[in-house]
Amino acid sequence: MLYIVGIGPGSKDFLTPIAEEIANTVDILVGSKRALDLFPQATRKIVLNAKNMNKMLEYSVKLARNNDVCILSTGDPGFSGVLKPVKKLLSKYKNVELEVIPGISSIQLCAAKLKMPWDNVNLLTLHGRKDYKKLLKFLNDDKPIMVLPSKDVNDLAKFLLNNGISGDKEIIICERLSYPDEKITKISLKEAAERKFSYMCVVVINYSE
Amino acid sequence: MLYIVGIGPGSKDFLTPIAEEIANTVDILVGSKRALDLFPQATRKIVLNAKNMNKMLEYSVKLARNNDVCILSTGDPGFSGVLKPVKKLLSKYKNVELEVIPGISSIQLCAAKLKMPWDNVNLLTLHGRKDYKKLLKFLNDDKPIMVLPSKDVNDLAKFLLNNGISGDKEIIICERLSYPDEKITKISLKEAAERKFSYMCVVVINYSE
Ligand SMILES: C[S@@+](CC[C@H](N)C(=O)[O-])C[C@H]1O[C@@H](n2cnc3c(N)ncnc32)[C@H](O)[C@@H]1O
Ligand SMILES: C[S@@+](CC[C@H](N)C(=O)[O-])C[C@H]1O[C@@H](n2cnc3c(N)ncnc32)[C@H](O)[C@@H]1O
Repeated sequence: MLYIVGIGPGSKDFLTPIAEEIANTVDILVGSKRALDLFPQATRKIVLNAKNMNKMLEYSVKLARNNDVCILSTGDPGFSGVLKPVKKLLSKYKNVELEVIPGISSIQLCAAKLKMPWDNVNLLTLHGRKDYKKLLKFLNDDKPIMVLPSKDVNDLAKFLLNNGISGDKEIIICERLSYPDEKITKISLKEAAERKFSYMCVVVINYSE
Repeated sequence: MLYIVGIGPGSKDFLTPIAEEIANTVDILVGSKRALDLFPQATRKIVLNAKNMNKMLEYSVKLARNNDVCILSTGDPGFSGVLKPVKKLLSKYKNVELEVIPGISSIQLCAAKLKMPWDNVNLLTLHGRKDYKKLLKFLNDDKPIMVLPSKDVNDLAKFLLNNGISGDKEIIICERLSYPDEKITKISLKEAAERKFSYMCVVVINYSE
């Protein structure tokens, strides 16, 4: 049996009881270091990182033919998470049963921190595929945009500057949400193009409280 | 102090530790009956229902000037939840401090149950405002659509039928997610226009696993 389990933005505060229960009872726990750190007592673990991701995901799916395997996903597995690549693998390993458990997405904690309703915003992930075309489309809308940047914020800010957005326009950068060093910065595009930010952030465009 | 706290789709399985902690330590707990049922030990409660909603929300905001008040929101407060009306009230009661805690939305549990990535879907709530114009726009897109219906599914199905969608088209209706009587039904539009469903459901259009 294969479980894909959302653990939320990072802190245990947002880890649901069902996620905790599944992670604590499976045979093998799979996830990034920061996800696995939530379960120090686990004995059989597979650590995912950017380099080994595809290989280890496939290995985990194979193991799930004869073991209960839980792949931890930060945030929600269905939002720019591990669900998509695993579903692809499952078309090859058809006899593996899958259960998906949602988690609080970084998008949601970002919205909550900014006290921002998100049922009428444009959500965009640039993670893994720089879908800048879609971003341009969203910029022509008047709705707020919430973006998971592709690599770093500078890249995103430069793209916006190069596409006619004023350098004085303010954006909001929410870094390391739910961690002790969480930081929320309102900053002009001009500055955002220069400053260093954590890779772990959500960027909000066209929103003011 | 005023807290708006997301409790998830209903079952305790999805109630985060931070939501539980806040609900258990405030002076006054406010929410629908099904939200309050998660906290039987609470002593001071205000029960919200469709009729008293506006009045009781304002009363809760007033109480928050001198008490710690927690308004429980099913799902995520920022997705078709209580955040929007409360923010409006806060423009009148400016000295009340607000903190928002996200929760697992019914949209997310629906997506998880269907093993459906939702970072590239059209999300729509018809709750409280029948935004059928937007639905028509989304129907011209090829992406899956996840809808919180306005009142009942029949109404939504009839609207689709009257707007040129084939009666044979299948939609997915996810009722009472996370409750013991949770039910997921794949059904033709024609049938959906006739059958009775719970008011508590998420409808998925243009998706097949
Ligand atoms: C592969 S995506 C996973 C998104 C995740 N499934 C979710 O729902 O939040 C990783 C990106 O999510 C965002 N992210 C994840 N956790 C975050 C956190 N605690 N604070 C800010 N951004 C976060 C960052 O943009 C990061 O680069
Ligand atoms: C006022 S909206 C609140 C939505 C909530 N904030 C959320 O994020 O799920 C109420 C609607 O949410 C949907 N809903 C809430 N809980 C649900 C559940 N457990 N199962 C299915 N749908 C649910 C139904 O469409 C219901 O009519």
